[in-house]
Amino acid sequence: MRIERDVLGEKALEDKAAYGINTVRASENFNLNHRAVNLNLIYAVVKIKKAAAVTYLRLKDGREGVYEAIIAACDKILAGGYADCFITEALQGGAGTSTNMNVNEVIANLALAEMGRNYGAYDVIHPLDDVNRGQSTNDVYPTALRIAAIEQLRELSEGCAALQQSLQMKENEYQDVAKLGRTELMDAVPVTLGAEFGAYAQCIARDRWRLYKVEERLRQVSIGGTAVGLSHNAEKKYRFGVIEELRAITGIGLAAAEYPMDITQNNDVFVEVSGLLKALSVNLLKISNDLRLMNSGPYGGFSEIRLAELQQGSTIMPGKVNPVIPEMVMQCAMRVIANDAAITMAAERGEFELNAFGPLIADSLLESLQLLKEAVLLFRTKCIEPLAPNRERCLQLLEGSYAFAADYIRKLGYDTVSRVVKEHPPKAAKEILDRLEEETFA
Amino acid sequence: MRIERDVLGEKALEDKAAYGINTVRASENFNLNHRAVNLNLIYAVVKIKKAAAVTYLRLKDGREGVYEAIIAACDKILAGGYADCFITEALQGGAGTSTNMNVNEVIANLALAEMGRNYGAYDVIHPLDDVNRGQSTNDVYPTALRIAAIEQLRELSEGCAALQQSLQMKENEYQDVAKLGRTELMDAVPVTLGAEFGAYAQCIARDRWRLYKVEERLRQVSIGGTAVGLSHNAEKKYRFGVIEELRAITGIGLAAAEYPMDITQNNDVFVEVSGLLKALSVNLLKISNDLRLMNSGPYGGFSEIRLAELQQGSTIMPGKVNPVIPEMVMQCAMRVIANDAAITMAAERGEFELNAFGPLIADSLLESLQLLKEAVLLFRTKCIEPLAPNRERCLQLLEGSYAFAADYIRKLGYDTVSRVVKEHPPKAAKEILDRLEEETFA
Amino acid sequence: MRIERDVLGEKALEDKAAYGINTVRASENFNLNHRAVNLNLIYAVVKIKKAAAVTYLRLKDGREGVYEAIIAACDKILAGGYADCFITEALQGGAGTSTNMNVNEVIANLALAEMGRNYGAYDVIHPLDDVNRGQSTNDVYPTALRIAAIEQLRELSEGCAALQQSLQMKENEYQDVAKLGRTELMDAVPVTLGAEFGAYAQCIARDRWRLYKVEERLRQVSIGGTAVGLSHNAEKKYRFGVIEELRAITGIGLAAAEYPMDITQNNDVFVEVSGLLKALSVNLLKISNDLRLMNSGPYGGFSEIRLAELQQGSTIMPGKVNPVIPEMVMQCAMRVIANDAAITMAAERGEFELNAFGPLIADSLLESLQLLKEAVLLFRTKCIEPLAPNRERCLQLLEGSYAFAADYIRKLGYDTVSRVVKEHPPKAAKEILDRLEEETFA
Amino acid sequence: MRIERDVLGEKALEDKAAYGINTVRASENFNLNHRAVNLNLIYAVVKIKKAAAVTYLRLKDGREGVYEAIIAACDKILAGGYADCFITEALQGGAGTSTNMNVNEVIANLALAEMGRNYGAYDVIHPLDDVNRGQSTNDVYPTALRIAAIEQLRELSEGCAALQQSLQMKENEYQDVAKLGRTELMDAVPVTLGAEFGAYAQCIARDRWRLYKVEERLRQVSIGGTAVGLSHNAEKKYRFGVIEELRAITGIGLAAAEYPMDITQNNDVFVEVSGLLKALSVNLLKISNDLRLMNSGPYGGFSEIRLAELQQGSTIMPGKVNPVIPEMVMQCAMRVIANDAAITMAAERGEFELNAFGPLIADSLLESLQLLKEAVLLFRTKCIEPLAPNRERCLQLLEGSYAFAADYIRKLGYDTVSRVVKEHPPKAAKEILDRLEEETFA
Repeated sequence: MRIERDVLGEKALEDKAAYGINTVRASENFNLNHRAVNLNLIYAVVKIKKAAAVTYLRLKDGREGVYEAIIAACDKILAGGYADCFITEALQGGAGTSTNMNVNEVIANLALAEMGRNYGAYDVIHPLDDVNRGQSTNDVYPTALRIAAIEQLRELSEGCAALQQSLQMKENEYQDVAKLGRTELMDAVPVTLGAEFGAYAQCIARDRWRLYKVEERLRQVSIGGTAVGLSHNAEKKYRFGVIEELRAITGIGLAAAEYPMDITQNNDVFVEVSGLLKALSVNLLKISNDLRLMNSGPYGGFSEIRLAELQQGSTIMPGKVNPVIPEMVMQCAMRVIANDAAITMAAERGEFELNAFGPLIADSLLESLQLLKEAVLLFRTKCIEPLAPNRERCLQLLEGSYAFAADYIRKLGYDTVSRVVKEHPPKAAKEILDRLEEETFA
Repeated sequence: MRIERDVLGEKALEDKAAYGINTVRASENFNLNHRAVNLNLIYAVVKIKKAAAVTYLRLKDGREGVYEAIIAACDKILAGGYADCFITEALQGGAGTSTNMNVNEVIANLALAEMGRNYGAYDVIHPLDDVNRGQSTNDVYPTALRIAAIEQLRELSEGCAALQQSLQMKENEYQDVAKLGRTELMDAVPVTLGAEFGAYAQCIARDRWRLYKVEERLRQVSIGGTAVGLSHNAEKKYRFGVIEELRAITGIGLAAAEYPMDITQNNDVFVEVSGLLKALSVNLLKISNDLRLMNSGPYGGFSEIRLAELQQGSTIMPGKVNPVIPEMVMQCAMRVIANDAAITMAAERGEFELNAFGPLIADSLLESLQLLKEAVLLFRTKCIEPLAPNRERCLQLLEGSYAFAADYIRKLGYDTVSRVVKEHPPKAAKEILDRLEEETFA
Repeated sequence: MRIERDVLGEKALEDKAAYGINTVRASENFNLNHRAVNLNLIYAVVKIKKAAAVTYLRLKDGREGVYEAIIAACDKILAGGYADCFITEALQGGAGTSTNMNVNEVIANLALAEMGRNYGAYDVIHPLDDVNRGQSTNDVYPTALRIAAIEQLRELSEGCAALQQSLQMKENEYQDVAKLGRTELMDAVPVTLGAEFGAYAQCIARDRWRLYKVEERLRQVSIGGTAVGLSHNAEKKYRFGVIEELRAITGIGLAAAEYPMDITQNNDVFVEVSGLLKALSVNLLKISNDLRLMNSGPYGGFSEIRLAELQQGSTIMPGKVNPVIPEMVMQCAMRVIANDAAITMAAERGEFELNAFGPLIADSLLESLQLLKEAVLLFRTKCIEPLAPNRERCLQLLEGSYAFAADYIRKLGYDTVSRVVKEHPPKAAKEILDRLEEETFA
Repeated sequence: MRIERDVLGEKALEDKAAYGINTVRASENFNLNHRAVNLNLIYAVVKIKKAAAVTYLRLKDGREGVYEAIIAACDKILAGGYADCFITEALQGGAGTSTNMNVNEVIANLALAEMGRNYGAYDVIHPLDDVNRGQSTNDVYPTALRIAAIEQLRELSEGCAALQQSLQMKENEYQDVAKLGRTELMDAVPVTLGAEFGAYAQCIARDRWRLYKVEERLRQVSIGGTAVGLSHNAEKKYRFGVIEELRAITGIGLAAAEYPMDITQNNDVFVEVSGLLKALSVNLLKISNDLRLMNSGPYGGFSEIRLAELQQGSTIMPGKVNPVIPEMVMQCAMRVIANDAAITMAAERGEFELNAFGPLIADSLLESLQLLKEAVLLFRTKCIEPLAPNRERCLQLLEGSYAFAADYIRKLGYDTVSRVVKEHPPKAAKEILDRLEEETFA
């Protein structure tokens, strides 16, 4: 055991604990037994720490050994394997300070180990004076969330592109599958199954475009702004360097915000991103639900398509197979919509120079991104790609309906056609309308 | 024109304007062009004013003429006909002060007219010193909202009772209509249409019970608590009297809150009520959507029931009839769910001794209550009561499915039945299972 | 009285009623007593009708007189004055068919009047065969909503630009007003009041940009796609013509959607727009709340600014003046956030070739746009522009705090400064830190 | 490795895997990498399985050994230690079938082990034919969710009782701490800090009552209703027995639903419960935010109380201590409000005899319950109990304000007092009003 101290007192830590006293306090204070901070956010914070250390290393202030050790520690964490050191709860108070402290402490201790020192020798490498040098949670945290969000958005956007492609393959494949169009669930006019998949592809294409474009606004980061965006304690050389290093480390075209004070306190950009995730969710709900309807049956429903059989569907009804992937996708989408409510509520609660509820925004947004990323992948590979049309059934429903009626109104007038359709079943109505047309235009 | 003055200056009003300077300022300040305060709330405020005046009249302080005139003015307003005097916007700032001021001014002027005086002679009857005597917006407004909510809740609860009854009539009427049960939209086991309507009736019965029971908590009112619930400027005699008069005037068993300071500042009870309206909305959405699905077709859908034809359904597809009432009901339900979000956001924004956002709570809650009241009525009379089953179709879908399969698993085991069903269409599968059963138990 | 007929029967209408039987049925069916369809939507539908008539007029099919009369009728409606003819409820079932029917009927009758005929002479001009020619509610309605939304968005965007400018004027004006920065409501480091207004201006600038950019996606319209986007009953010449005329009439660079079937059934673009309105609302909530906090007092709060006194604030506490405009703005913002929930729920409920819940989307989105437009204007003119700083108070709070402490940590280390600050009040702490600094670097 | 088979094919499982092929398929299909099903739900399912086995044991059908082994397996799971066998994702498709299958398989295999058999020997004990005997996911799952919810509600309700008590202790302790009351954040009339805590206690008391009462409705369970609530495959003796055993095992007064078909398909009761959790959240947000405001400072804010110092508050501002517990509580509350949106959306999506989205309801509701349970505990012990008032500051703010003004209006009239207050600072105004009062009543 080792003892660590802060202004509030001291704590005993196990020797192997790579985190320190601030992390321990946080884990006691926020003991919700819910879930830890999203690892994508942790890794984004680590990238910032590394960028800072690289910057200081270049400034050659005589402490190069310290910065080299910090960089090595960051690389170790980023290689995976230290995930269990990051133990603070996702919904922590303190605007992310505990997340930043946790990272600072783990890096400090791993860096000390690099230098052959024991954990806790903070006089050699200090979590705040060294690892956090020139930084504040208030610039680190929003910057890290932007980086993590961009990384996830890119993956999601690619997933949407692949989904769009699969939908378009179905569009081509089924362009000759004539079927009944429906509006308000009622028989309408003829369409093709291919055209329907084409419409699905279109809205997913729009989602992909939006998710790609919104990165622009996320790339404005406030790192260097420290406490309130006015760069207290951040030297000019550091500020210019760190953004450059961060670009190199993340591979993202980050830009120093022109007005960091705005970025520090305002979270509307996350509301914007979440709004776009909600738009994607709305489209996924629409498409999934259509597929469930088309798949309904097999004998007592629409039965226009067959989804792949992925697992037994009932513990009591043998042979029952459920549309489990659309159902899962829909639940992910609803969760994303609910997360949007959390993000909105948190974002509108900013006060003066900061928003205290960044941790809820981060947790919700990163959950949404991950859920959608996985859901879109599973939707494509386990639902869209393996589904098959029921061509005979499609044709049968089309031919048994009044779908032909709209074609007559230009020539016979709305009222006449309405009356015929009201009084006769489909086949008879068609014959009458044909006769009327002949008579009228004979 | 007459001139009125307040500490901020003066305003010219048209002679016939029954409101005064505070109302004019409010209508300029909150010029949203959105909608006026809900009249049910206005009338509830007027009932409080009347109860206060009756109380003071009984205290015989020598100003009986003033109180009699105020009472007469209140009665006139409550008889209808002065609705256009209440011009302040629903989403006003000031926690309802402008609503209270508007009512105070209109009552004062109508009371002055009763006494043969001109509007604006506030030295004779003063909107605040007389009409608002012993009151504050902070006790009047939450009390009025409780009264208005209870009045609407009672009507809604009755509407639910009538809807429940209609659904139960259908339950009885259709108990012999065998049909296919569906889970996750897939063919399941046999049910009856009557049983389905019975399940609908059950959940509406639960709604009715909840809406009836929640009145208990709404009946605790803070009138007499004035500014912060500590009864500044409200004499004891008045406080005891006013609640009694208010009970008489409203016919509601109102009770003076034991801790008015709580009632003044906390709005969780409206969140609770709105949550119950949301539960009702969820049930209406479920039932409406089921009806839309059962009504889908007429040839390319489930077609298990026929909704009444209420209007032409398309400007281009002759003969098309849409499920317009379920669609309207669903939209009302979604609006109520959205209003719940507004009520929640407003309610959690209380600070110290008051919540500044009562007007949004009031507007949203009373909109929800009214929408549901009307929607439930129209749903019953224009959708549920006139609908008719398509018995042949119900039977046909049932008999063409695997709905029988579950009955064999106790005897043949889940795996065996699954295999048979997977490999054979319904009719053949049934024959095989019957044979297997005979063999097994022969 | 005149009699009108449809396939369901007949209705007597007052002679002067410009609407017809479909409108009457709709007003009976959707008798919610809530509110009528938003007039901005009605007028956008009328513009489409006019564009269609102009197109047909140019096609010279021998019925020029009819189209000229229709055009004249449209112009009359657009000039205002016929608003009370549009009586269908906002939350109607039927996916907007009743709105379209209402407009068709009013135009037909006004056009008949132009030709010197009686209302109801539909054999001369038919609401569907003539006014609705080549159209369906399913292409008219989403196109109209896009037009109405763009018109409102442009006004809102301009309103944001003006607000941004006012905030920037305050930024310049107050750049020398030193004050205490606060994070998590706790004393932090020094800022200026000007810098705070600058941060407000920045986020509003972002809103303005977003609202301007999103128009791109709204400009894709499906007019010409009719029932399901496949252009049933819409001749090619008409389709090319109508979009051109519509551009001319609206002054908006509308484009025919490449895939109208997508536009007909998908509403994600309204979710996107509403998401941006929500982002603006979040910023308005943040700024308004900051102003309320800074204005709190006048003696027992922060008192760093003084909002204009617009009306008396209490019916019981003389002299009390409340921050009524921020409170109103916040309620509008919360309503917009709630409307976003309605729009999302409605949008995800699309099925196959249509979404039945367009009327809820339209009503909610246009309410949000209007509320924000008015709220932004009132916020600027009645709150931001007339507010004034309390310079002495700002300085006093700054100088009495530990805001200076962060400046010492680079030189003295985080732990040392923490300890000094923990043990001494601000003034003493500063002296000790100055002394330590001297000693350390002497 | 062992091989398991179902109608879709076969899967190789590690010998030690206690789950079976259905679980493996589910974990592949719903590979969201999000989180596993809530363990409280799993354990409630296990209790149902145990109750069923006990019931069958009593029916003495000759397979007592099987049922005894199943019971022993259930007890082992309930003792903890097998949590890692339950690997299906929370947001699974299939309406909970995979959760039920996972439990069935694990119990079957553990029971086989009890009997000295290998995992997978399903001819001896079958997951469906034996463990799931007489059951369906469709009655097991909603029953289990009710049990889990009641268990959590009871703990939460007790937590609220303890919180209420702590608040009331503060009410008593601080009844002599005079302070300024505030409405709309503006100085109002005098109150005491004790009275404020009393108001907090009141609303929490209301929450406690609601959470206690709602159990009534949750106690109606549908176990025995199987697939659609009509008890397919559930023998009468079993149905009567299982509810009795379940009461004994859970210690909850469960009752067999009178109309199980309603309980199977309708989820309004979870919307109701979630609505009450939302009401509690609203109160927690209000109280937490008040505490943050009262704690703001220490020098530049209200500073009326001091929250306990639990951890260092900043990585850059030494000595800064943040209100981390209220911030955490507020985030939990917002998460609960957001979860309510998910629950509502899922609940309204029921169709016919089932709601496919029960897994989202379960995951969200149980997350809400757990978060609130922990948050209420931490709020009480780490925030409420250790906080301390700043008596001098409270008095100073009160005495420096116009809080006295309301007391004069009964005697001097609203307009007179307003004018004096508008023109003079607090102390001078008081003197003038005293003089006026003397003159008037001399």
